[in-house]
Amino acid sequence: MDIGIVGLGLIGGSLGLDLRACGHRVLGNSRRQETCQLAVARGIVDDAGVDLTLMAEAEVVFICTPLSVIVPTVEQLIPHLQPAAVLTDVGSVKTPIVEALTPLWPNFVGGHPMAGKAESGIEVAQSSLFAGRPYVTTPVASTPPAALEVVEDLARSLGSRLYRCSPEDHDRAVAWISHLPVTVSASLISACISEPDPAVLSLAKQLASTGFRDTSRVGGGNPELGLLMAKYNRLELLRALQTYRGQLDQFIAQIEREDWSALEQQLTQTQQARPDFLEFD
Amino acid sequence: MDIGIVGLGLIGGSLGLDLRACGHRVLGNSRRQETCQLAVARGIVDDAGVDLTLMAEAEVVFICTPLSVIVPTVEQLIPHLQPAAVLTDVGSVKTPIVEALTPLWPNFVGGHPMAGKAESGIEVAQSSLFAGRPYVTTPVASTPPAALEVVEDLARSLGSRLYRCSPEDHDRAVAWISHLPVTVSASLISACISEPDPAVLSLAKQLASTGFRDTSRVGGGNPELGLLMAKYNRLELLRALQTYRGQLDQFIAQIEREDWSALEQQLTQTQQARPDFLEFD
Repeated sequence: MDIGIVGLGLIGGSLGLDLRACGHRVLGNSRRQETCQLAVARGIVDDAGVDLTLMAEAEVVFICTPLSVIVPTVEQLIPHLQPAAVLTDVGSVKTPIVEALTPLWPNFVGGHPMAGKAESGIEVAQSSLFAGRPYVTTPVASTPPAALEVVEDLARSLGSRLYRCSPEDHDRAVAWISHLPVTVSASLISACISEPDPAVLSLAKQLASTGFRDTSRVGGGNPELGLLMAKYNRLELLRALQTYRGQLDQFIAQIEREDWSALEQQLTQTQQARPDFLEFD
Repeated sequence: MDIGIVGLGLIGGSLGLDLRACGHRVLGNSRRQETCQLAVARGIVDDAGVDLTLMAEAEVVFICTPLSVIVPTVEQLIPHLQPAAVLTDVGSVKTPIVEALTPLWPNFVGGHPMAGKAESGIEVAQSSLFAGRPYVTTPVASTPPAALEVVEDLARSLGSRLYRCSPEDHDRAVAWISHLPVTVSASLISACISEPDPAVLSLAKQLASTGFRDTSRVGGGNPELGLLMAKYNRLELLRALQTYRGQLDQFIAQIEREDWSALEQQLTQTQQARPDFLEFD
């Protein structure tokens, strides 16, 4: 199959490596000529160019740009596409993308391969990044079943675990397990550095260990990613945050009124619930 | 030196291994005869017994029991102690312990070796558990300098990083970096499992990955430890929680009013601040 990849970063580059390994012909696009050259040199793509004309040869095109430029990229891409081409994206929020792209290209399938690394860019692209990881497709009523099947077959060939749900359910689920943790964790760092006594703050920094390290990790990550999550999944994130705030207030109330049996019960519940979220990870 | 260890769990057992390796004679005490036998068999102590009479031979005694029984244990121990014996504890909260024990035994020095493992008990005691880890002493105005020096010399011989501060500063610092993260993290798990749609909850569980895993780790830990922290460091934990809630509300307000530049600025600040807390870990 001839497969186009628009946006050659970590995700686009890693997709290229795996799809070529499966025997497909992969055509890449990047705004930067150096990235195109590197993609060809590293065997990530068969051919690549800075303009979108190459995409006329593709039967399937993966949009792997940052979330904020998916829609304008597709608007520029459409004049070059074959009428039967299947279009899919890899954005981490689905509702606004699916709502914008479905009217523009009927053969569009929203997708989200959930793999990543701390670093980004084509330099860190790698084989088998998606193996064993979730790949969510988010068809709507008008999504052609044949287009969905093409995307899911490719996702399966990457070794991913396939899930299929509505864009709204996807965004609500990732708000809980991916976007809420970022805000919760960032608030922890903000709270700690607001300690007014410099001697206590300095001591806290020197005593911090794995508990602080793990709980603060995603809140100390790339600010652009946190910003994009909040912008594009704003309503689901706010909903999760309000629920979180209610749970936090409940813990605070238990400690304030020294209701130790209620606190122990709730901590026992969180201990018991956590493994259900880690079954596949 | 003849050193007593009352309470032969992970901390007491690991102390015994290191102190014997330094050439000291180590005398252990546990309520359980099997633990005493195991401690002798594993070379953790030179001798051990279920009653406290053995402690009459010790020049320094480490109280390594759970936080909740430190004070009653010391009350039972005092009739057996040599008049010049130095007494110290390893409790993770210092103000209530130091306030209770200083009037009971003038030669008392509050201490907190900050090392641990996921598992507890003498079975997981190990050499060099404290090497490179913080060991905080919390003397007060009446603490004899000679007693403090004895405890700090022993802590230094374990390879620990020594810190000295007031019990109040210790408790405030650990509230930020150890006790607040537990509540923040437990609230995350509680919030996620309150999702009312079973399909979304099931999807969230299957999509959860490293971000959720790390942020939820300490909130899904041993409920007894979380409970003890809240009980014994209640006021400092509540103070930290109120500050945290203020920071969380600030994030929520930024997202509500779509103030993306303020959100980006705050996420940039948390990204920049985090490494200061991880310098030694």
